[in-house]
Amino acid sequence: MFFHRQELQFKASPSKPDAVFARRLQEVLGGQYGEISVAMQYGFQAWNSHEPGKYRDLLYGIGAEEFGHVEMLAIMIAQLLEKAPVEQSEDAMRADPVLGAVIGGTDVQAAIVAGAGARPVDSNGNPWQGSYVTASGNLLADFTSNANAEMQGRLQVARLYHMTDDHGVRDLLSFLLARDTMHQNQWIAAAAELRAEGVEDLPVPSNFPIDKEERDVSYQYINFSDGAKASEGSWASGATPDGKGEFTYVAEPPRGVPMPPPTQPDERLYGTTPKPNIVEKAAGVIKDAVTSN
Amino acid sequence: MFFHRQELQFKASPSKPDAVFARRLQEVLGGQYGEISVAMQYGFQAWNSHEPGKYRDLLYGIGAEEFGHVEMLAIMIAQLLEKAPVEQSEDAMRADPVLGAVIGGTDVQAAIVAGAGARPVDSNGNPWQGSYVTASGNLLADFTSNANAEMQGRLQVARLYHMTDDHGVRDLLSFLLARDTMHQNQWIAAAAELRAEGVEDLPVPSNFPIDKEERDVSYQYINFSDGAKASEGSWASGATPDGKGEFTYVAEPPRGVPMPPPTQPDERLYGTTPKPNIVEKAAGVIKDAVTSN
Amino acid sequence: MFFHRQELQFKASPSKPDAVFARRLQEVLGGQYGEISVAMQYGFQAWNSHEPGKYRDLLYGIGAEEFGHVEMLAIMIAQLLEKAPVEQSEDAMRADPVLGAVIGGTDVQAAIVAGAGARPVDSNGNPWQGSYVTASGNLLADFTSNANAEMQGRLQVARLYHMTDDHGVRDLLSFLLARDTMHQNQWIAAAAELRAEGVEDLPVPSNFPIDKEERDVSYQYINFSDGAKASEGSWASGATPDGKGEFTYVAEPPRGVPMPPPTQPDERLYGTTPKPNIVEKAAGVIKDAVTSN
Amino acid sequence: MFFHRQELQFKASPSKPDAVFARRLQEVLGGQYGEISVAMQYGFQAWNSHEPGKYRDLLYGIGAEEFGHVEMLAIMIAQLLEKAPVEQSEDAMRADPVLGAVIGGTDVQAAIVAGAGARPVDSNGNPWQGSYVTASGNLLADFTSNANAEMQGRLQVARLYHMTDDHGVRDLLSFLLARDTMHQNQWIAAAAELRAEGVEDLPVPSNFPIDKEERDVSYQYINFSDGAKASEGSWASGATPDGKGEFTYVAEPPRGVPMPPPTQPDERLYGTTPKPNIVEKAAGVIKDAVTSN
Amino acid sequence: MFFHRQELQFKASPSKPDAVFARRLQEVLGGQYGEISVAMQYGFQAWNSHEPGKYRDLLYGIGAEEFGHVEMLAIMIAQLLEKAPVEQSEDAMRADPVLGAVIGGTDVQAAIVAGAGARPVDSNGNPWQGSYVTASGNLLADFTSNANAEMQGRLQVARLYHMTDDHGVRDLLSFLLARDTMHQNQWIAAAAELRAEGVEDLPVPSNFPIDKEERDVSYQYINFSDGAKASEGSWASGATPDGKGEFTYVAEPPRGVPMPPPTQPDERLYGTTPKPNIVEKAAGVIKDAVTSN
Amino acid sequence: MFFHRQELQFKASPSKPDAVFARRLQEVLGGQYGEISVAMQYGFQAWNSHEPGKYRDLLYGIGAEEFGHVEMLAIMIAQLLEKAPVEQSEDAMRADPVLGAVIGGTDVQAAIVAGAGARPVDSNGNPWQGSYVTASGNLLADFTSNANAEMQGRLQVARLYHMTDDHGVRDLLSFLLARDTMHQNQWIAAAAELRAEGVEDLPVPSNFPIDKEERDVSYQYINFSDGAKASEGSWASGATPDGKGEFTYVAEPPRGVPMPPPTQPDERLYGTTPKPNIVEKAAGVIKDAVTSN
Repeated sequence: MFFHRQELQFKASPSKPDAVFARRLQEVLGGQYGEISVAMQYGFQAWNSHEPGKYRDLLYGIGAEEFGHVEMLAIMIAQLLEKAPVEQSEDAMRADPVLGAVIGGTDVQAAIVAGAGARPVDSNGNPWQGSYVTASGNLLADFTSNANAEMQGRLQVARLYHMTDDHGVRDLLSFLLARDTMHQNQWIAAAAELRAEGVEDLPVPSNFPIDKEERDVSYQYINFSDGAKASEGSWASGATPDGKGEFTYVAEPPRGVPMPPPTQPDERLYGTTPKPNIVEKAAGVIKDAVTSN
Repeated sequence: MFFHRQELQFKASPSKPDAVFARRLQEVLGGQYGEISVAMQYGFQAWNSHEPGKYRDLLYGIGAEEFGHVEMLAIMIAQLLEKAPVEQSEDAMRADPVLGAVIGGTDVQAAIVAGAGARPVDSNGNPWQGSYVTASGNLLADFTSNANAEMQGRLQVARLYHMTDDHGVRDLLSFLLARDTMHQNQWIAAAAELRAEGVEDLPVPSNFPIDKEERDVSYQYINFSDGAKASEGSWASGATPDGKGEFTYVAEPPRGVPMPPPTQPDERLYGTTPKPNIVEKAAGVIKDAVTSN
Repeated sequence: MFFHRQELQFKASPSKPDAVFARRLQEVLGGQYGEISVAMQYGFQAWNSHEPGKYRDLLYGIGAEEFGHVEMLAIMIAQLLEKAPVEQSEDAMRADPVLGAVIGGTDVQAAIVAGAGARPVDSNGNPWQGSYVTASGNLLADFTSNANAEMQGRLQVARLYHMTDDHGVRDLLSFLLARDTMHQNQWIAAAAELRAEGVEDLPVPSNFPIDKEERDVSYQYINFSDGAKASEGSWASGATPDGKGEFTYVAEPPRGVPMPPPTQPDERLYGTTPKPNIVEKAAGVIKDAVTSN
Repeated sequence: MFFHRQELQFKASPSKPDAVFARRLQEVLGGQYGEISVAMQYGFQAWNSHEPGKYRDLLYGIGAEEFGHVEMLAIMIAQLLEKAPVEQSEDAMRADPVLGAVIGGTDVQAAIVAGAGARPVDSNGNPWQGSYVTASGNLLADFTSNANAEMQGRLQVARLYHMTDDHGVRDLLSFLLARDTMHQNQWIAAAAELRAEGVEDLPVPSNFPIDKEERDVSYQYINFSDGAKASEGSWASGATPDGKGEFTYVAEPPRGVPMPPPTQPDERLYGTTPKPNIVEKAAGVIKDAVTSN
Repeated sequence: MFFHRQELQFKASPSKPDAVFARRLQEVLGGQYGEISVAMQYGFQAWNSHEPGKYRDLLYGIGAEEFGHVEMLAIMIAQLLEKAPVEQSEDAMRADPVLGAVIGGTDVQAAIVAGAGARPVDSNGNPWQGSYVTASGNLLADFTSNANAEMQGRLQVARLYHMTDDHGVRDLLSFLLARDTMHQNQWIAAAAELRAEGVEDLPVPSNFPIDKEERDVSYQYINFSDGAKASEGSWASGATPDGKGEFTYVAEPPRGVPMPPPTQPDERLYGTTPKPNIVEKAAGVIKDAVTSN
Repeated sequence: MFFHRQELQFKASPSKPDAVFARRLQEVLGGQYGEISVAMQYGFQAWNSHEPGKYRDLLYGIGAEEFGHVEMLAIMIAQLLEKAPVEQSEDAMRADPVLGAVIGGTDVQAAIVAGAGARPVDSNGNPWQGSYVTASGNLLADFTSNANAEMQGRLQVARLYHMTDDHGVRDLLSFLLARDTMHQNQWIAAAAELRAEGVEDLPVPSNFPIDKEERDVSYQYINFSDGAKASEGSWASGATPDGKGEFTYVAEPPRGVPMPPPTQPDERLYGTTPKPNIVEKAAGVIKDAVTSN
């Protein structure tokens, strides 16, 4: 169950409206790595989890915080949009060049669709979608996904910080940056804990039967490009992070195997297939045809 | 530049056609964590990279291999679909119960749209989409994304392994499992190398000015649910993975701040706003109205 | 701010697993009119609202409940999927016809992607998307949208009720039906209250200047099809619901106005435009050409 | 069957081209609540309807009109785009600040993809999609959806009216506003008629067996937030709009029920599950690990 | 303007309901190459066209017919769904294996969402989308797109024909096949006519200044794979269809040019860039790190 | 198998950065008719093809080239974005009007999401999607689709050419224009060759049994609009391009057939159906109701 309190975790008011920045801020609300994504992702991971205890409590404990971040950003965006211009005539743009810039830089749907309100979309107006959520049931994979989400998210907030000089907005971004610092650390710690406790390990899934894997190529770096520097990396020699092998470097991919013959599905699917008794028509006919007119 | 050779990296032929499994295999071809995703992701990370050398060579070196995996899976799927039934009458289903199961378990568009061919879609027929790709320009974030992609991908291949008993299919899956083992290890190694070399560090981005972050809450676990076990995790006390702080545990979220007043945008957006001189109409009128009829 | 408690508003456990029904139940979790939609919709309407007080409190008060419904459904679906078969060989299907039906009727991604877990998608596997949310800033329009959402939602739950005979599932559906009954009534009451209080009225938006509307056609039913029965409805004569006009019935659309001349954009866009000095080539040439081969 | 006449229902020509406004106008052509949506929605409701007569005739009668509105808007947009600038160099922008505003405010695909033409997309370039259509087979639900669509649509047209001062554009918008006035009234009248005739009633669906609903909570307002003002609304006490109950107000949600135990799916799905014989490794090991480097 | 008549162009009733086939038939209603696509495509091409006369009349003349085809298919699908089973228990499936097949083969949303009705989606339930429409303003390009759409559409109808033995359904498909025959021929004739009249020509756009094109490679077949048979085709030697060149065959792609140096964007975007004064840390440190635990 | 070489087929560096143009260039990278589309389309057509030989070699031979074009465009876009401004304050915009234009004209996600990098999206930020790919298994249909793709693609590149005056960008566009000239010619030649060799013919599919088609309407132009000029086209009389018929012109659509009766699905789907014993309630009641308040 979820409960709501009419307070914000941190103050979320701009010094002044700025419709151009409002659009940019939509990215961390409704984008691929925005707050809706992490709120929903932690929720689904918790609901799908297979054991009670500290890992599930962790997911529940942070999930509700993220829904509160969704709220803070939505309310901030609505305030940034508060003075968005309605009038958009050329005369008005000519009189004030900044107006033209604002019109070009603002999300048009913020006014037309939402009446100067926030929306569950990214900074290009793409609606948030459920495919942004990862919840596989395997916690080492999923905590790695979470660490990635918090990294990408913090990166975007850091970039946004430099796109504005509004103190109120920057305060909120500072708060989000700090929480993302925490959450990056947290998921990395939790992933390490899963491994240390032997709950899960590398490679994910770690308990897939090893004899069913084509082990010859499990630790080979095979170089399909012509750059040679990758041979210098720690992924080209030495022990592997899963502690089960040694990296090797293969400078040229070995020859492959022949392609299987093309398929011959039911002829009632009308695919193009070899016609046994086609008369080999003269090339001249063909070439005449394609150049007619 | 890319070049193609009419060979496969590994044999990719089923022992016999199986249209039901063909649909399932689409997931690791055209799904969120399928081969198209990683091929494109490594490509965009390479094209957007900001320095030459081993990390970029690594991205180029593996990217082309993944396009070859796309090809192997597409060719395997076409073969699995080769004998997909066209006829779907109730009489035929009644005569052979397995036919009914096949009709229900097969991707309908494989026949109608592709004539028994593979398609750039997932196992539910959702088209692959560009938003599956992460390429932020920050390599520590992106390599973490890559590690996640390879974990989710190997997990899906492992699940698919148990959904079939076809030797040819399982051979290909064994090969893909091994390559995913390699690629998980590789990205984790590369991420560690970025940190060890000081190219990038935690938290991502590591060079955002620390004084611009709200440091009070940078290492606090704040518990927004009522489970208490999360306090036992390594994310609740002790040193943080970024080496810059100490985790603390906050059992109850502190009081927040009051919400800002609601916004008052331009009235020509026709949002619902307080009407100063509304006559407080009698409640009886309202309730009569809503219950009419 | 949102807070989570590790309880459910109502019991949400099936009598026995049923992976076929799990897929169907996804519709009211992650479909267009599922619980994610209403939870997010009430949230965005609250965050974008322009006045404090009972209407905003109403939105906040119900929004958090809906997130709890998301949770109940996700947990129910995970339990329904608990015994979903992994093995999907033809031999197994032949031995047990119900297995074939289960394989055909189950969401394939529930196993491959989520490891027998719920996902933010509908019953066809389409990801939930932000465009399902309506939050215009105009409360009469939005409460009508909410009433519609609760009607469509209750309708879907009622249909689902008859697709299962599991007592545990039906209990949860009975609970959801009751809450949808409440919520339908509530939004209709709230919409009526907005009108009774004069906060907003029909037509939405009610304060658009009346002289800027083409009033001649504001209350005309114009019949663009050849059915005559629509003339018998209350929308064809009598007073209009907005209390501002009289319906009239126009049996045949009046003649329209001529189309404007086609546009002539910049020739560097290479659209097909009239060529002033084209030689009218003989029809024979054309027809010869198209029948070549 | 549909027939086309080369006339427009109303004049649709701007006084002068305006590519910035053309983009905005796309919203009511190809957006969620644009003319394509209502045209298709009324069509599908008619095709799926279960009885002949006035309600179906109404759907047919208005559906074809809406396709004509699609046409009027497309033709208007093409004219607005007629002089859209092709050249977009910085020098040109520097010479004329309005040019820069135009370039920023125009849909880039209008030129690149459509050669200065209209497209079935919204004002942010999101393609129109079939999920905007509601056609459930239940007319009271669907007419409520229609009323909502006409309200949201009229609201958007009213907002657009103030974004331009072009007389030709405003004339068309005045016409559309009037038709939306009609259509709002019409659907509300038709919904009331369904109830008055006893064809359908609240709550939708009205003939779901009442004993299968958890009636205890069918008329309770349960407050999941901490605002108290919602208790003052007509939805918190008094008779309900469906005429079947009395609203009650529950200030605090009652305790819920315990969560069911987590699921234990087939281990071949490789979810993370409790490991019975894990050695409780020392916390120090974990914390050392996460802080390495 | 569009007008509707309550008749169908051709009879559209099945001999008996068949919910499995209903799902398949959705492909040619709401799929990429379904009737909605061509109806909308011809509409947008007409509305965006730049000259009156026979080509625009052709687009208008056929567009309205296609909307009538949408209607025929929607009505056919509703009839096919008329007896779709609601009850889906395992017991029922066990008693009747065909029921299981039907449940697996039917679109679940047809019942839950549409109450046994047609929907604007394809056979996998993906919503129809505006990006299926091509209307570039260049008629030779667009008529080629139209020819393709009619080819793909007829191919799908032909495949569907063999998936059913219902006489009523087959009659409708026979009619659609015939109309697609006409429309393929028509667009090919119209494309040829554009060329014969000199309105447009190959390559599209034909009036792009020839000196601005890198003519050296305008007629080269460059072979980026290792198959040699493509040299035998009419595209490898001889006159080109545009009548302006001679095909040549290049068996091996020539060497390319060096890649440009990687970009160095503003450091406030926090991309990973070369760090001038990084201490080359020992490889041992790295490898220790990645193998910890 | 695919191999990568760290070279570009043609030089791809702008004379100077231009973030506004970068966004526009995304269209031919990740748009419907961009390079990702053709690369993937030719790949899937090859993998799904049913015969070895020149046609499949052609698909393989060109597919890898297109992946190289993806790379060239991505690298060009990254360079165009290199100096994209981060700072976006109103003061800065006021000081430099071009900055405002740039901010409005640039893809916001290029900076926030990709750190000044290319992305697999179109010029409006819509992600590339798998539904852009056509691979039906029928080569005449598919080669027509390919010809269309190359026409639309070349048209877009030609338009883009005029939107910039940067020599480096124009050089790359000149190269792409030339390759599109080749590829248009090539697919038209290949389509003609399929027909000349009798492998496939018009109408597609050419071997569908002719007696199963409703031949009466196979060559009729039926005019559903009121323009008369379409009768003058080569599609209205004379021999048809498939060589199998004669076009005829039908000025008015003949009368259709009556619509079938509406469907009556299972009542547990709660659709609105005729109620046999409804008391015809007085119209006054209805109209009173709708005008209440």
